[in-house]
Amino acid sequence: MTNDREVDLAALNAHWRAANYLAVGQIYLMANPLLTEPLRPEHIKPRLLGHWGTSPGLNLVHTHLNRVIRDRDLNAMCVWGPGHGGPAVLANSWLDGSYSQVYPDVSRDAAGMGRLFRQFSFPGGVPSHVAPETPGSIHEGGELGYSLAHAYGAAFDNPGLLVACVIGDGEAETGPLAASWHSNKFLDPARDGAVLPILHLNGYKIANPTVLSRIPQAELDSLLTGYGYAPIHVTGSDPDAVHLSMARAMDDALERIARAREQGSGRPAWPMIVLRTPKGWTGPVEVDGVPVEGTWRSHQVPLTTVRENPEHLRQLESWLRSYRPQELFDTDGRPTEQVLACVPDGELCLGANPHANGGLLTRDLPIPPLEHFAVPADKPGATLHEPTRVLGGLLARIAADTAESRNFRVVGPDETASNRLEAIYDVTGKAWQAEILESDEHLARDGRVMEILSEHLCQGWLEGYNLTGRHGLFSCYEAFVHIVDSMVNQHIKWLKTSRRLPWRAPIPSLNYLLTSHVWRQDHNGFSHQDPGFVDHVLNKSPEVVRVYLPPDANTLLSVADHVLRSRDYVNVIVAGKQPCFDWLSLDEARAHCARGAGIWEWAGTEDGTREPDVVLACAGDVPTQEVLAAASLLRRHLPDLAVRVVNVVDMTKLLPREEHPHGMADLEYDALFTPDRPVIFAYHGYPWLIHRLAYRRTGHANLHVRGYKESGTTTTPFDMVVLNDLDRFRLVMDVIDRVPGLATRAAGVRQTMTDHRTRHHAWIREHGTDLPEVADWSWSE
Amino acid sequence: MTNDREVDLAALNAHWRAANYLAVGQIYLMANPLLTEPLRPEHIKPRLLGHWGTSPGLNLVHTHLNRVIRDRDLNAMCVWGPGHGGPAVLANSWLDGSYSQVYPDVSRDAAGMGRLFRQFSFPGGVPSHVAPETPGSIHEGGELGYSLAHAYGAAFDNPGLLVACVIGDGEAETGPLAASWHSNKFLDPARDGAVLPILHLNGYKIANPTVLSRIPQAELDSLLTGYGYAPIHVTGSDPDAVHLSMARAMDDALERIARAREQGSGRPAWPMIVLRTPKGWTGPVEVDGVPVEGTWRSHQVPLTTVRENPEHLRQLESWLRSYRPQELFDTDGRPTEQVLACVPDGELCLGANPHANGGLLTRDLPIPPLEHFAVPADKPGATLHEPTRVLGGLLARIAADTAESRNFRVVGPDETASNRLEAIYDVTGKAWQAEILESDEHLARDGRVMEILSEHLCQGWLEGYNLTGRHGLFSCYEAFVHIVDSMVNQHIKWLKTSRRLPWRAPIPSLNYLLTSHVWRQDHNGFSHQDPGFVDHVLNKSPEVVRVYLPPDANTLLSVADHVLRSRDYVNVIVAGKQPCFDWLSLDEARAHCARGAGIWEWAGTEDGTREPDVVLACAGDVPTQEVLAAASLLRRHLPDLAVRVVNVVDMTKLLPREEHPHGMADLEYDALFTPDRPVIFAYHGYPWLIHRLAYRRTGHANLHVRGYKESGTTTTPFDMVVLNDLDRFRLVMDVIDRVPGLATRAAGVRQTMTDHRTRHHAWIREHGTDLPEVADWSWSE
Repeated sequence: MTNDREVDLAALNAHWRAANYLAVGQIYLMANPLLTEPLRPEHIKPRLLGHWGTSPGLNLVHTHLNRVIRDRDLNAMCVWGPGHGGPAVLANSWLDGSYSQVYPDVSRDAAGMGRLFRQFSFPGGVPSHVAPETPGSIHEGGELGYSLAHAYGAAFDNPGLLVACVIGDGEAETGPLAASWHSNKFLDPARDGAVLPILHLNGYKIANPTVLSRIPQAELDSLLTGYGYAPIHVTGSDPDAVHLSMARAMDDALERIARAREQGSGRPAWPMIVLRTPKGWTGPVEVDGVPVEGTWRSHQVPLTTVRENPEHLRQLESWLRSYRPQELFDTDGRPTEQVLACVPDGELCLGANPHANGGLLTRDLPIPPLEHFAVPADKPGATLHEPTRVLGGLLARIAADTAESRNFRVVGPDETASNRLEAIYDVTGKAWQAEILESDEHLARDGRVMEILSEHLCQGWLEGYNLTGRHGLFSCYEAFVHIVDSMVNQHIKWLKTSRRLPWRAPIPSLNYLLTSHVWRQDHNGFSHQDPGFVDHVLNKSPEVVRVYLPPDANTLLSVADHVLRSRDYVNVIVAGKQPCFDWLSLDEARAHCARGAGIWEWAGTEDGTREPDVVLACAGDVPTQEVLAAASLLRRHLPDLAVRVVNVVDMTKLLPREEHPHGMADLEYDALFTPDRPVIFAYHGYPWLIHRLAYRRTGHANLHVRGYKESGTTTTPFDMVVLNDLDRFRLVMDVIDRVPGLATRAAGVRQTMTDHRTRHHAWIREHGTDLPEVADWSWSE
Repeated sequence: MTNDREVDLAALNAHWRAANYLAVGQIYLMANPLLTEPLRPEHIKPRLLGHWGTSPGLNLVHTHLNRVIRDRDLNAMCVWGPGHGGPAVLANSWLDGSYSQVYPDVSRDAAGMGRLFRQFSFPGGVPSHVAPETPGSIHEGGELGYSLAHAYGAAFDNPGLLVACVIGDGEAETGPLAASWHSNKFLDPARDGAVLPILHLNGYKIANPTVLSRIPQAELDSLLTGYGYAPIHVTGSDPDAVHLSMARAMDDALERIARAREQGSGRPAWPMIVLRTPKGWTGPVEVDGVPVEGTWRSHQVPLTTVRENPEHLRQLESWLRSYRPQELFDTDGRPTEQVLACVPDGELCLGANPHANGGLLTRDLPIPPLEHFAVPADKPGATLHEPTRVLGGLLARIAADTAESRNFRVVGPDETASNRLEAIYDVTGKAWQAEILESDEHLARDGRVMEILSEHLCQGWLEGYNLTGRHGLFSCYEAFVHIVDSMVNQHIKWLKTSRRLPWRAPIPSLNYLLTSHVWRQDHNGFSHQDPGFVDHVLNKSPEVVRVYLPPDANTLLSVADHVLRSRDYVNVIVAGKQPCFDWLSLDEARAHCARGAGIWEWAGTEDGTREPDVVLACAGDVPTQEVLAAASLLRRHLPDLAVRVVNVVDMTKLLPREEHPHGMADLEYDALFTPDRPVIFAYHGYPWLIHRLAYRRTGHANLHVRGYKESGTTTTPFDMVVLNDLDRFRLVMDVIDRVPGLATRAAGVRQTMTDHRTRHHAWIREHGTDLPEVADWSWSE
């Protein structure tokens, strides 16, 4: 390897020492930031919180990224996997000036340094981790595993961008990270940015060595080569030697990346850096007689009783002074020229790159008029369409119209076609940089559909893509979206916080299409049946979460149109892929979605002169069909009964107005559901969710909910609803049981319903299919 | 490689053909199983459901496992990762006789074959996947990613057992599977069984090629070598050649395993097999003019309209007859001698090995008297202990007392010490087969604590360990247990089903200890704050799930004692690791846990003559402390108020009796909570969970719940409860606001509480610590 670039080791080391000093200062000091006087207990924070162990390594990486960005005018951002090393990233963003730009009161001088120190992990201050509050970050890092997927998501469709990604050796043990290395099979050197993974082997987690630091280097190299990378090693504990080696490694990596890009599409062996430095490097070597630097003991706060223990106080002071702060900061606390020599200018700073505040770069999606895709529905329930297939048409058009802007992707775990969205393949392929055979279909080096059998990667990629300002949709089997429960938690937390930061521009929402849902798992059965993601998401911040259950194709279009235009939300859409009756025309669907919940007058038997006798409510495609079939049975068998049918598209409408911005006022709720009539609610998921949403409503005591109650297996669609007591016959029985006075009058009708269910059980065991009157049912007024 | 073992290719091929025939028969036929007459549409099932693509590969593996088991009297089981290939595993278990043993009506003859075919994926029959109903299985495989972790879990502490594990190339893309390869750093060749991974590269998922099948073989070998394995390749599509190659590969692998075991502890390069055969091998080559065999199109049902399309019917018949069934089964439908030549006897059959019905092998844990570990608590709230540290003593003793039986393990993602359970290290180490340095602590080749920074692996290992009949505990940070939401779903589904199968013996429960919980994340903040796992689990089958929130050390001991003795449950315990007041003596704790919820008379101010004015209820350690502090404030400021304090340990007590076996009868509930008095409920997690559990109760309208509402950050413990309105002052205000007539009378007290909160806000911003009167508070009557 040759490297002609000059390396000013002294300057790099000064920057690194400054960053280390600032990291230690944040953890410990609430006064005397420049050590202008001897350290006294009252300068020390009363609660010492933060993570030192990873910080010197992160600082090293930051220093060297600064160097290459400045030297090469590089457009770069960095994902800091060990996000608990907040002190390091904050220190660097204060050093490069981006922190003070966003938070002017934390100025780049002594006063600002004092505030920087005091606020860290202090009540009312800033979190101890890299967080939305941290300039230049798109990744919290508190929950480990997602850094590399985020980095790739940021790089897709960002040619010219370098996304560095520090991966801790702890994080490298997680499943999502272990799979993320393979993201290079989906990255197009010609049209995407580059990702530079930096695997930081500091050897220890909280209390244990790490797997990758304790296998022979040849085995590690074999692993990384097998993942498709060419590892470059930087190892040591002597700062000057490591600086030189790291500078050369960075130059080497960037030259290899440049060559890969020149070669265009295909799959080069992408460079990566393996950085082996001691955990807690430059910190106390030994504390209270046991080794600390280079061991797991330096993970958090190496000296824990500084206020109380004069020896710890002395050790801290000598540790801080070991960085020679007087050489790094002038008497006003400003970093010296030498410290700032490697720092890039303006937007090139890692703390200021607009890609890491992606809303700044967001362009609206070109969403065509829905009329081109809507299905005709002049009469409710007269025709059938597969809602997701109809949506596929819209997505295909958007994909076509973003062929130049390349700011829209669809991700899914090998299910895009299974979920009937394959119209998109007419306009773009599936991204694939591995081998392509002649028999393959729709694989393309420049494809913008991304399929890998990993919900974690789909989610991580799309989050990274959203966070850097681009749009997308994640289509997923409903049951298996639980795989990313914890990831969506973190993304919602990120959005909740970033929405409150005026300098963070809103980013495109994270949009889920959950299909192949609980009611239609004919092929797969019980393991594929779980509608609980909605429950999970609705536990989270109401300002961020939105849940839609469109009952047919046109309402799905209208919902999709809405969510693709929205910002800073997590939108969950649950919609079937199987043929489903068209209930609403496009205009009706739009009006219905705008309200979020409404009366379907055509389906009920109210005469307008009085309150209905009963409300049949529904949310979800299958429950809507069963409710309409029940309404139809009631119309035939009990024509005098005044039945109201209410459909709910937007689940958060059921919440009180104080609990969610979409929540209905009580008067509105009562106008729909009545304050005192029995409401039989057929819901797509776990029935108690409806109670959890509506428990404060006046009529709650009259609310009776049917839904999925974990009775599942491989069976017919109608048998599934019967097993869970959600079928039309059961709903009619519920009406008879709950409307006062009906039990006796309608005893015969009730028996007829029971007979239907009995007949169903017998029929299905013999024929393995649904009753003809059910299979052939369609709505007629 | 030399191989002297004789390979009867004809017999192996006959067995494989028979299994393939039976797999196709299950997918298609409801009559004419032996093709004794020409195939007619009415022989075909009306709904064709199942997965053919993976089945011939699974059948090949099964045939060859049979051979080596029989030849070597091998004690072996197999985890079938591509569990959707149910037809294959069912076919084999019918062939080896284990199916008929468990289900005598599905006999190994023509009549039984007819039933085997008809029941498959037929309403009221058996699921299309490998399932609890499948003899010899511990793994469903519907949700991909966990096969290899299950296999390792089964192998730990089972010396002499071989656990084969088929991993599909689709599954290999998932995160959990990608991390699972590293499980070999935790497997002791001397004391554990062996795992033989068989990576089946049939090239395609549902609709896409797979990553590992499309990278160069050298790259794949490098990857697998880097994971610590020595791959043995079997590639081809000519049956005889593949049989020979597979037989040799199996022999080679088993000989290498034998050598590794002889060498004792350490880490050999474990053998594994890479099997490359066509997807849908031996199925239709082409259907309707497009290639099917060897492509993704053979994933499910290659011929889809057999009843309607005579050409498809013809193709199916010729496909079935291509196996020459008349050579494989006699006229009574019994498999011929040649077919059965490779089948092992009795318990050695894969379908009958007792390890795969682990309850058969379960031995009770030796649980010592809790008196040895309990903390003295003569007076409530007079002393403080860290509950998890106290539990650590109990776990250490159990670990010591199972040193010989080796049937107890503790798993955790690098948090066992952080969660203060480290007493266990006095008696056993942390399993570790990678490099050990002199400075390391507690690492041991034979350790029975398992730590890796992957919740997925912790969960997968423990599930495998439980399913093979052994005991364990998973200690996890509360927020990050969501990472395994979807895994626990599948385990609960497994238990729900297996509990109903008389031949499946009950297995040890899956036990979680969730600690480092939402209220005490001083170091980490918002990303580490999420109490929603309880909500998630409570959506699942009530016969399986149990949730406990012990409020102090002795109740934690009592709960732990209970869950470690239990079978077939998923037990979730949420308990703090921080110092916590001791409220109950051991005897009181036992009595309280037996009831699940009860009145703490000593804490209230009832005089026994009338209903209380208000009920202060609590669940969880921090809410219990705040409620007791509130009770103490009320006692001081409003001494005439009759306050009742109720603590809930077992959350499912709140459910109606019809909804959960632990649910309280309404009378019981009313006796605790009153039918009509205000109840202020301080709950550990999301407040609406309490409403979702109690919405049917008489007094529900008077229930007011405080809990975590997503207001989190890095701050002090008391500030966290203030941010979420769960603090003692807020609770007192809630009482004043809700007890009729109190608002005016207690306006001054209310103002005092507001003042306390104001003082808190000012104090914490200045000092960064909690108010002295809060930090120093303790209970006094």
